[in-house]
Amino acid sequence: MKLILHEVGLRDGLQMEKQVVPLDVKIRWAEELIAAGVDMLQLGSFVHPEKVPQMADTDALFTHFNQPDKKPANTVLSGLVLNEKGLDRGLACSVDMFCMGVSASETHSKKNTGMTVAEATQRIIATAKTAQATGKRVQVSVQSAFGCGFEGAIPAARVLGIVEQYFAAGIHAVSLADTAGHALPEQVESLFAAVFKLNPQAECACHLHNTYGLGLANCRAAMNAGVTVFESAIGGLGGCPFTKVAGGNVCTEDLVHYWQRGSQRTDLKLGELITTARSMAQHFERELPGMVYKSGPLSYAVSL
Amino acid sequence: MKLILHEVGLRDGLQMEKQVVPLDVKIRWAEELIAAGVDMLQLGSFVHPEKVPQMADTDALFTHFNQPDKKPANTVLSGLVLNEKGLDRGLACSVDMFCMGVSASETHSKKNTGMTVAEATQRIIATAKTAQATGKRVQVSVQSAFGCGFEGAIPAARVLGIVEQYFAAGIHAVSLADTAGHALPEQVESLFAAVFKLNPQAECACHLHNTYGLGLANCRAAMNAGVTVFESAIGGLGGCPFTKVAGGNVCTEDLVHYWQRGSQRTDLKLGELITTARSMAQHFERELPGMVYKSGPLSYAVSL
Repeated sequence: MKLILHEVGLRDGLQMEKQVVPLDVKIRWAEELIAAGVDMLQLGSFVHPEKVPQMADTDALFTHFNQPDKKPANTVLSGLVLNEKGLDRGLACSVDMFCMGVSASETHSKKNTGMTVAEATQRIIATAKTAQATGKRVQVSVQSAFGCGFEGAIPAARVLGIVEQYFAAGIHAVSLADTAGHALPEQVESLFAAVFKLNPQAECACHLHNTYGLGLANCRAAMNAGVTVFESAIGGLGGCPFTKVAGGNVCTEDLVHYWQRGSQRTDLKLGELITTARSMAQHFERELPGMVYKSGPLSYAVSL
Repeated sequence: MKLILHEVGLRDGLQMEKQVVPLDVKIRWAEELIAAGVDMLQLGSFVHPEKVPQMADTDALFTHFNQPDKKPANTVLSGLVLNEKGLDRGLACSVDMFCMGVSASETHSKKNTGMTVAEATQRIIATAKTAQATGKRVQVSVQSAFGCGFEGAIPAARVLGIVEQYFAAGIHAVSLADTAGHALPEQVESLFAAVFKLNPQAECACHLHNTYGLGLANCRAAMNAGVTVFESAIGGLGGCPFTKVAGGNVCTEDLVHYWQRGSQRTDLKLGELITTARSMAQHFERELPGMVYKSGPLSYAVSL
């Protein structure tokens, strides 16, 4: 199975940064990521611009990349929406793929949306169906699927209950997000195995963080389990501002480096990803969590 | 199988540091690590004190911890020796367990020892047999077993050829070291599987670095392959000064955090390991690579 890279640094990375990155800088980074060959690129989130000013130019970004001479040929542009209002904005600026989800944690759900998990699930399924009806690609997620910064353990049954509702609603692209970075590799394998048991045709994505050092270990566990879509952030940026301990996302160039040394996705331009990570580190004037942009990549593949 | 922790930070960590850590500070850290319950503790390396001044007090450290009232009841004290001269020093100060090895990389071997791999292997086997004859525990290793900072790929057959010679000499405790951090999880699994095929009774250890972010992913691969002894460094200190890109060792407290959340080795005192990592970060006045001492540990176990 081909491994698919979904770059989310411009969303899950930049929403975490105190400073708002100017639109022209975001455009340059997005251009570089597209040139590097990322399969999917999340340009932003359709949240209230006053609530999350870092994402206020999301519409402008999509509008820019939907100009005929700017539209990427091989990169799907995704946007995160939280509700119908966000969906309307996303439809107005021609988002390719809508991402949306609920948290499996009642506390996280309440803090993020003001709704219970059950309420949020009903609402997001309705939004997802509306989006699907427009012919757009839709991916639904379960946040805090492997544990919650507020609640700790999240029962697998609760996650699977939400996933079952997604499947019942006819949505087969499902992402499990380790929002706070609590996942263990053994857990990643068993939870995705349970998802595939519910629906062997599911298109599974993982969204993993490296809070406790297990980011790539969990990616490999997801690969073992048959997950094909990997959400990661360039430089290892990011984290969710609404959880207590927010570690960065799995680092895109570290993940791609791992894949390429195992002779997978050698078409992705690792050197250009590293250049972008370095440019981001310069922009933010700090060291980012990614390892490979600092150590430099190894160019030989491992024969297994 | 019980997972065994072999803490090597006082050796592979401190030999990498520019500043020489005073003996009384090393003693304090060693006491803390013993109190935390590490199974094996590498106190230092019997190298020439002028060549590696960071290790010059290794004999004094062993002498200290071999005083009747200082001798740890449940921690094996190990020392690295490079040759017969180091072994004599180690025997004189009552080392419990001798670690020694060769590099599978000709370039690394030449730079480190001035010998070819074949010469170094003969020499180290002779030293190991001398050590075994004294009734001491002996562990032999293959450095750069998964790739070399100078040479790149290291053929598995070359590593296995060395391991075969170890087994033929009657030494069954074997460590494969990823000196430069090049290993991929798939490679860790396949190489250890090949070692166990040569000798199903082998007592296998892994010594992994986190240069490219795969440290814990490789640990998990080693666990999957049946490896029982894990060499790691508190705080993620370390790296080999004789290789080009030197990443830190797998971080002890991050590894223990992973194990404990999976309900393994809950007897180890994670809180005390974290305290020592913090004390080391203060001593060196910089952030160490470890994640958990910064984020704080999660205290709930994951039900799998």
